[in-house]
Amino acid sequence: MTYCVAMLLDTGLVFLADSRTNAGVDQIGTFRKTVVFEHPGERVLVLQTSGNLAVSQAVINLLREGIAAGDDKPNLLNAPTLFDVARCVGAALRAVHEHDAEALQRFSIDFNTALVLGGQIKGEAPRLFSIYSAGNFIEATPENTYFQIGESKYGKPIIDRVIRRTSSLNQAAKCALISMDSTIRSNLSVGLPLDLVLVRRDQLRVARHVSINDDNDYFSGIRRTWSEALRHAFAELPEPDWLQAGEAPQRSASGGR
Amino acid sequence: MTYCVAMLLDTGLVFLADSRTNAGVDQIGTFRKTVVFEHPGERVLVLQTSGNLAVSQAVINLLREGIAAGDDKPNLLNAPTLFDVARCVGAALRAVHEHDAEALQRFSIDFNTALVLGGQIKGEAPRLFSIYSAGNFIEATPENTYFQIGESKYGKPIIDRVIRRTSSLNQAAKCALISMDSTIRSNLSVGLPLDLVLVRRDQLRVARHVSINDDNDYFSGIRRTWSEALRHAFAELPEPDWLQAGEAPQRSASGGR
Repeated sequence: MTYCVAMLLDTGLVFLADSRTNAGVDQIGTFRKTVVFEHPGERVLVLQTSGNLAVSQAVINLLREGIAAGDDKPNLLNAPTLFDVARCVGAALRAVHEHDAEALQRFSIDFNTALVLGGQIKGEAPRLFSIYSAGNFIEATPENTYFQIGESKYGKPIIDRVIRRTSSLNQAAKCALISMDSTIRSNLSVGLPLDLVLVRRDQLRVARHVSINDDNDYFSGIRRTWSEALRHAFAELPEPDWLQAGEAPQRSASGGR
Repeated sequence: MTYCVAMLLDTGLVFLADSRTNAGVDQIGTFRKTVVFEHPGERVLVLQTSGNLAVSQAVINLLREGIAAGDDKPNLLNAPTLFDVARCVGAALRAVHEHDAEALQRFSIDFNTALVLGGQIKGEAPRLFSIYSAGNFIEATPENTYFQIGESKYGKPIIDRVIRRTSSLNQAAKCALISMDSTIRSNLSVGLPLDLVLVRRDQLRVARHVSINDDNDYFSGIRRTWSEALRHAFAELPEPDWLQAGEAPQRSASGGR
């Protein structure tokens, strides 16, 4: 499994991905799920992948070959807009589907992969896309601050509660790490190291790419202090008075009801 | 969908369930998913159901018929232990499977249902079981404080972080409501009203059965203040210093990496 989250803010983009891959619990590996393409000063693109690893690796390979070919076909470094870049990624996905889907089906393996693409190209605002297995995609609009792929549910509530477009990159990074911590605690198939990529609006290059492992002091601190802070916040909330000592039951009947 | 959670504590049991049922987003209804069977002073049993509504209603009907038959076959009110009660529930599930599974299969409908059973019978400690579609089940041991069925992921992290066997019933009720709130915010198919049932250890009857709707002051207050408390706790945590103003990028390369 995988958990990736990407956030689009007024001041830039934050990407966080785990690196655990598994084919059953007895076959677990570490594969990076974040790929950066950049031409500093002109464009910065970040791709996160989830789902079938063979499919997502093939997609990344085709995208790199497209750049290396150097012809006038659209590729990640010459496509004029991020919408066109998303179409390049979609086309690569469709090419892999064309090549592999039938063979996978013979083994009852779903062709499933999901990608998040974000970044900025000179002349455009930063943009964020969520790309599906079919190669189609949606883009974050002002109402959407983030996309998740993979094991998204455990880490979703905290993002919904604290992140807005106006949040800072550091706030968003902090929230993404808390969201990842909740996910790692609940799903064994999501694990360290993490890839955190920060992109500042209009800088057109990666501002910071941090690889986070067990020995990362900030992440260790967040894991510990967030649990403490939650327990403290929980303790501070009033308790219900539905159960006072010695209270008689409110409703009572014998048999089923 | 459904979200039910039940907690087993040193001082008793807490059960919380939503009541939304859907067959597609255009067909949503309200059905209670909590059923109480009690013989005050001798036993109290609480069942929560999720999955196919026709299956779980049929199970409850068979269990009620078993009680009404009044013969010497094991039923929910004469089974000597909670383990035997869990077997009764499993047997009812298997009887429904026998009757319906083939017909469902012809319509490609999975026979899926999951139940949580908890309570106390005189002479035993309170016990908690999670019962699967096949009629088999597991019981909470001292390491397990709770079971969830249905849409369990959104509301799991908060329980893991704050609830222990030593938590009070009121603390557990508060936590269950926060867990439910996170779930309702993320999954439209989980909705009010909620059924909250509190059982005190050795009281052998329901201590409190609360039906919680929009107009419940405590739940409304928890929903609002928990969001505020989380945002406050989040704001109090230190931010990373990975991104200082004007900092040069840490790693940089053109092309993919």
